Amino acid sequence: MSIVVVGTVAFDTVETPFGRGENVLGGSATYFSTSASFFTDVSLVAVVGEDFPDEHVSFLQGRNIDTAGLQRIPGKTFHWSGRYGYDLNEAQTLDTQLNVLMDFQPELPESYRDAEYLFLANIDPDLQMQVLEQVRKPKLVACDTMNFWISSKPEALKKVLQKVDIVVINEGEARQFTGEANLVKAARQIIALGCKRLVVKRGEYGVLMFTADTVFAAPAYPLEEVFDPTGAGDTFAGGFMGYLANTGDLTEEGIRQAIIFGSVMASFNVEDFSLNRMKRLEYKEIQARFSNFKALTSFRDVSL
Amino acid sequence: MSIVVVGTVAFDTVETPFGRGENVLGGSATYFSTSASFFTDVSLVAVVGEDFPDEHVSFLQGRNIDTAGLQRIPGKTFHWSGRYGYDLNEAQTLDTQLNVLMDFQPELPESYRDAEYLFLANIDPDLQMQVLEQVRKPKLVACDTMNFWISSKPEALKKVLQKVDIVVINEGEARQFTGEANLVKAARQIIALGCKRLVVKRGEYGVLMFTADTVFAAPAYPLEEVFDPTGAGDTFAGGFMGYLANTGDLTEEGIRQAIIFGSVMASFNVEDFSLNRMKRLEYKEIQARFSNFKALTSFRDVSL
Repeated sequence: MSIVVVGTVAFDTVETPFGRGENVLGGSATYFSTSASFFTDVSLVAVVGEDFPDEHVSFLQGRNIDTAGLQRIPGKTFHWSGRYGYDLNEAQTLDTQLNVLMDFQPELPESYRDAEYLFLANIDPDLQMQVLEQVRKPKLVACDTMNFWISSKPEALKKVLQKVDIVVINEGEARQFTGEANLVKAARQIIALGCKRLVVKRGEYGVLMFTADTVFAAPAYPLEEVFDPTGAGDTFAGGFMGYLANTGDLTEEGIRQAIIFGSVMASFNVEDFSLNRMKRLEYKEIQARFSNFKALTSFRDVSL
Repeated sequence: MSIVVVGTVAFDTVETPFGRGENVLGGSATYFSTSASFFTDVSLVAVVGEDFPDEHVSFLQGRNIDTAGLQRIPGKTFHWSGRYGYDLNEAQTLDTQLNVLMDFQPELPESYRDAEYLFLANIDPDLQMQVLEQVRKPKLVACDTMNFWISSKPEALKKVLQKVDIVVINEGEARQFTGEANLVKAARQIIALGCKRLVVKRGEYGVLMFTADTVFAAPAYPLEEVFDPTGAGDTFAGGFMGYLANTGDLTEEGIRQAIIFGSVMASFNVEDFSLNRMKRLEYKEIQARFSNFKALTSFRDVSL
């Protein structure tokens, strides 16, 4: 099954203690679709400016990503600059130039509108809603967001959260959105808005997934070398949704496996700048790391 | 099998956003031994002053803890005061009155010296070493420490770490001790000192356990109500060592189970102030929560 994703395609300028990337390929939809493309067909909805090089479009198409929904309009591509300290858990945004994002009106190609899986990656919640309304009968809709939209457009965001099946956000954002310090309580509040599941991303601490009556905890993969956490959350979401779209298994067990595949993809992504690790990633590496996750987390039951 | 533990027995004055406890029972050896007593016999080595009430000693003895090594000497009992904010992850120490701890010379009763399991809870590393030297042929020795000793007695601490089988410390302390921001690298450095295993406590994010060639990740139990994190680490260590001493199973699998039992005990301890939750805890609750940990973490393997 194929996924439609709306989000950003961007130039990033990123500094970490281990190096610097200037005007490298980035954006929530870029990371998401590249990651998901290892598991399923992906159709991209995003906007770039006249300065966006063909080689990046070729890269996406080379991963079999449908770019019919990638608009190119006059102006410059969205540009994000950020910096990470040694703990690598949270980016400090240095500069945000929205550029063409300010005039973006997502218009889905007809071939996208029967998509069964839809991911509303981090972008203006009004744009997320516009895309949601254009997809006729999705089987599963998930969304992400960020602190900026929580504080600037809380009502528009709330409307999106009420329409989706799965909300995927950072731990700090779950707390910020609900004003609740306890994560279990914050999760209950978000689920009470109407979604079925909440996936809370905790950076190097992994993921907690909540439903009304279950919790699943997945660790992050312990890595000796982390170069650049940019895009880890979107890469996680891409692996998660990509695997779900691949299997169509929306049982608790199927969704837990998808969480692990998402975690696997994120763990690779942080091993190099931009999408460099994704560019040389092979499926057999994904399989091997899934097995490593099993070894990392398994313990024997006791006969009590 | 029985465990000998050396550490502090203290009065704590603790403030959290949910309440305040004044001069309540605390101390690393208190939390450890109470937790371990659910699984095995425990012999306590610690010091208190003349102000320490008999009811606390009776409580420990009521849990079948051997208090022959609990010295009572002239002066006041060690007193720690601290405060937690809403995130509850790290205590701010407001006041530390060492009192009788300053003159403590641990002297093990003869009956303690053949102990097979020894836990050197958080206390001056010189005292940890004195106790270690008095136990003739322990099968397993583990130790904890804290930031204060890492900065004030790094050499004495290093000597202790070189003599133990398992080091149990906080994430921040692992980074502080090694000066290494990456936890996997920090773990390798600590294991290179000579211990076989490192157990890294990460508060609400759970535990990572390292050996030279394995890693195990256990989440913390997601709780809707956390009242007081004081003693969570010692309670974890008590459940961990207590279960190991109970089963004698020092294989990787046995030790992983012990990590989960430690996590179970810590999750109960934070549900109330001081040792109040431990005082009313029943073994069937421990069993039920172990099962919940299994449900919390399990995911199906894939046929890849």
